[in-house]
Amino acid sequence: MSAVKPEDTVILYDPEKDKKYIVNLAVTSGKFNTEKGEIELESLVGLPYGSEVKTHLGHVYYLLPCTLYEFIMYKLRRLTQIIYPKDAAYIVLRLDVKPGDLVVESGIGSGALTAVFAQLVGPEGKVVSYERREEFVKNALSNLRRFGLADRVEVKLRDIEEGFDEREEADALFLDVREPWLYLDRAYAALKPGRMLGVLLPTANQVIETLKGLKELPFIDVEVCEILLRRYKTVPERFRPEDRMPAHTAYLLFARKLKGEKSGSV
Amino acid sequence: MSAVKPEDTVILYDPEKDKKYIVNLAVTSGKFNTEKGEIELESLVGLPYGSEVKTHLGHVYYLLPCTLYEFIMYKLRRLTQIIYPKDAAYIVLRLDVKPGDLVVESGIGSGALTAVFAQLVGPEGKVVSYERREEFVKNALSNLRRFGLADRVEVKLRDIEEGFDEREEADALFLDVREPWLYLDRAYAALKPGRMLGVLLPTANQVIETLKGLKELPFIDVEVCEILLRRYKTVPERFRPEDRMPAHTAYLLFARKLKGEKSGSV
Amino acid sequence: MSAVKPEDTVILYDPEKDKKYIVNLAVTSGKFNTEKGEIELESLVGLPYGSEVKTHLGHVYYLLPCTLYEFIMYKLRRLTQIIYPKDAAYIVLRLDVKPGDLVVESGIGSGALTAVFAQLVGPEGKVVSYERREEFVKNALSNLRRFGLADRVEVKLRDIEEGFDEREEADALFLDVREPWLYLDRAYAALKPGRMLGVLLPTANQVIETLKGLKELPFIDVEVCEILLRRYKTVPERFRPEDRMPAHTAYLLFARKLKGEKSGSV
Amino acid sequence: MSAVKPEDTVILYDPEKDKKYIVNLAVTSGKFNTEKGEIELESLVGLPYGSEVKTHLGHVYYLLPCTLYEFIMYKLRRLTQIIYPKDAAYIVLRLDVKPGDLVVESGIGSGALTAVFAQLVGPEGKVVSYERREEFVKNALSNLRRFGLADRVEVKLRDIEEGFDEREEADALFLDVREPWLYLDRAYAALKPGRMLGVLLPTANQVIETLKGLKELPFIDVEVCEILLRRYKTVPERFRPEDRMPAHTAYLLFARKLKGEKSGSV
Repeated sequence: MSAVKPEDTVILYDPEKDKKYIVNLAVTSGKFNTEKGEIELESLVGLPYGSEVKTHLGHVYYLLPCTLYEFIMYKLRRLTQIIYPKDAAYIVLRLDVKPGDLVVESGIGSGALTAVFAQLVGPEGKVVSYERREEFVKNALSNLRRFGLADRVEVKLRDIEEGFDEREEADALFLDVREPWLYLDRAYAALKPGRMLGVLLPTANQVIETLKGLKELPFIDVEVCEILLRRYKTVPERFRPEDRMPAHTAYLLFARKLKGEKSGSV
Repeated sequence: MSAVKPEDTVILYDPEKDKKYIVNLAVTSGKFNTEKGEIELESLVGLPYGSEVKTHLGHVYYLLPCTLYEFIMYKLRRLTQIIYPKDAAYIVLRLDVKPGDLVVESGIGSGALTAVFAQLVGPEGKVVSYERREEFVKNALSNLRRFGLADRVEVKLRDIEEGFDEREEADALFLDVREPWLYLDRAYAALKPGRMLGVLLPTANQVIETLKGLKELPFIDVEVCEILLRRYKTVPERFRPEDRMPAHTAYLLFARKLKGEKSGSV
Repeated sequence: MSAVKPEDTVILYDPEKDKKYIVNLAVTSGKFNTEKGEIELESLVGLPYGSEVKTHLGHVYYLLPCTLYEFIMYKLRRLTQIIYPKDAAYIVLRLDVKPGDLVVESGIGSGALTAVFAQLVGPEGKVVSYERREEFVKNALSNLRRFGLADRVEVKLRDIEEGFDEREEADALFLDVREPWLYLDRAYAALKPGRMLGVLLPTANQVIETLKGLKELPFIDVEVCEILLRRYKTVPERFRPEDRMPAHTAYLLFARKLKGEKSGSV
Repeated sequence: MSAVKPEDTVILYDPEKDKKYIVNLAVTSGKFNTEKGEIELESLVGLPYGSEVKTHLGHVYYLLPCTLYEFIMYKLRRLTQIIYPKDAAYIVLRLDVKPGDLVVESGIGSGALTAVFAQLVGPEGKVVSYERREEFVKNALSNLRRFGLADRVEVKLRDIEEGFDEREEADALFLDVREPWLYLDRAYAALKPGRMLGVLLPTANQVIETLKGLKELPFIDVEVCEILLRRYKTVPERFRPEDRMPAHTAYLLFARKLKGEKSGSV
């Protein structure tokens, strides 16, 4: 059974209130204050996940691992609109991201998608993130550090106007910038032949411009889609969807780099 | 730049017709017949991806890597309804599957979700799949072999009525069986404390029964959702959704194993 | 051009603030206070719709007709969950409600769907609404009165356990009750042969029970559906869906009364 | 109980096969051939709806009224993409169409929305439809005639470039043309002050242009939406959505005519 490591992000779960606290052991130390007393954080290291821990007042909490999903949804510090798990999940599958891959992205945002890339490429892989706003870089790196993923991410603090340093090296390339159609040729240059480009586009106008831009370059297999996540209430006697749901985060666009010329109509 | 290996699954792309052929070099050999002449498959090994290759009649094809997404959608041999990429992508993120993990599932179906698990756990990880129908096992293993993922998958040809061999060892556990509510206790026993159970449920009746069953066991964080994927036409002058879309594949249910007792109202 | 009548429900629109006030002239009288001064309500009667009216401080408002849609969304007093326009619109079309029809429903709720029925059957038609809770009847009738539709609605203050008074007379019949499957035989008796039954069902469990009940009676053409309304932001430079939307109001079920026996498998 | 009239559109329902035949008595006469023998159509007139009728071979059919919904979905002859009931239903509610109203539209298409307007305005109301293509007019009028609604519809065989004849007379105005943004001023002139304009827009590009055009005119309350209809399988033991659904028909846009000037930011 897995034991807590000093750099882990853990959950302290109060079973009476069905309430969770997420704690980054690497950045938080000393006593942790809950509604029902204090817990000495150092005492958690080495305990098996699932253990009961008690506050100094004797109240029981459970020690649980924090998933990347929970970290993104509840703990990530946001300076920007984040890329949500429903979208991030489909993006990594469509881009075919695997352990060992080199993934290139711009910009870093708050680091949510960066974290998903970093978790999936594993210790052998690498994420290179281009971002020109220093405050975003600082915040995203702080987020990544708190989830133990910062060492797989290299940040380049600059605009992609000058292009990416990678030349036909990226196993996957993702653009989350305001005017992605300006950088499609740079993205093309950085990607390995045959590999996938992904683009996040909040508005239909942006999709239209990007589709126009793609026609000028040897990209094939262009797909535009949106992912809708609809949650249900979990009372078995009254099974029904939640009352409200997110209606839109962004359109997702994917295309594959073809080495060489496209013929006319493709 | 990556070169083709003898066990790769590759795409031969006809740029004039915008048409793709998927070929498993490990299982197919000799000459490959296209509409425009033959290609000697052995000659592809060692070529960089993106290369032009010519048929014996001089027609140009491009050599592209086959993504897992394409393999599942277009090449996987199906004996069962498969778990689609839109669902598989969200499942692996919610179950927090990472390189090195041990994932346990039942049944294997046609191996689509198994392949996604196997790709993500990487060479250090492992997928254990329980399946009692021999023809499904054969077909799924053949599918996995053709995509180079079979060595990360161990199949146990038996019913899960007797339970899983893993005892608090699974980093993630997934059930795709007709009556999952009958096996929730076995799933509970196999999972590491704090880790996630996932269940695929085609009908509302199945969701209702599973939610009832979960109430009897120390599972928390129960979520039921569905993922809808809506594609758009890619003509920039007339941007609009496709005319039709899949309306339903299955409901997805997730829950987290709590070690110990749940209190009354949780 | 239409002129305001003494019983109209009108809108006073402030063009500077893009803000609307809905006023029922039949039930409100005297001076109407806006943020920018008072308007004498009696002075509005006889004015053509579209007219400018000024407060005693000289600020301009526009006099607009209030649509039934706006009345339901913004002015109806709600004691219950209402049936939303997106659902009401589809219900009346599927039930084939026309000018002159007799529509029977139970219960009355807050009168939203009743109002839509009443508007469409016109002055020659009639809505009969069965409702056992007196406070709902009072509120719904007050709502209908304020929109000038009460004289087309007859309320029967009683449970439908005893059945409907109408015998093969209803052109359409709608059930919005907790356990509609208990009253399908009464609904059947009240409907004209060949006409449509509609049922509102918030949960999947209720749909399942109602589908079971329908199998015991000569109903055909059973349809279950849901209507999703997704709104878009109206900035042309950044066209995109709203961030959030209603995910669920209710499942809608429709069936047609067949006079006589159904054969086995229908 | 209602009896069949000589101009009715009726359904002959085969209970053994759960199969329906739609017959327009006004335009079809003589014998009607089913798979199980003939039925003399004149003999149906005067029978109560719901009656059993027998073929000359003695097989039982049921005589049912045909709803407008069925007529549009299964019997309307289509020369164009039609406006589907899910959209038509929401359009008439948002445009506040009532018995007695004057509704103006362009173009007529195959007459599906025209039929819904005509049914709802009733015998006291009127629909004026502008259409320049003669073959569309012929087909739509033939459709309307077969459903007994043609006498409420006046067709003007011409382009709306020259404008509508109605001056502040239309209770509702609907545009289903390729470039509606070119005619917004004509639509504005035809509408009564305070009443609603509706526009059908298949593509996002068209929505964007129309939104731009609306900014130049005194329209308020602009709404853009789409209506999604998701059907469910009706087997109570396996309740679940259908496998596929329409993903898109068109975006719907609504706006209200304000008499006078809009202030800057509205």
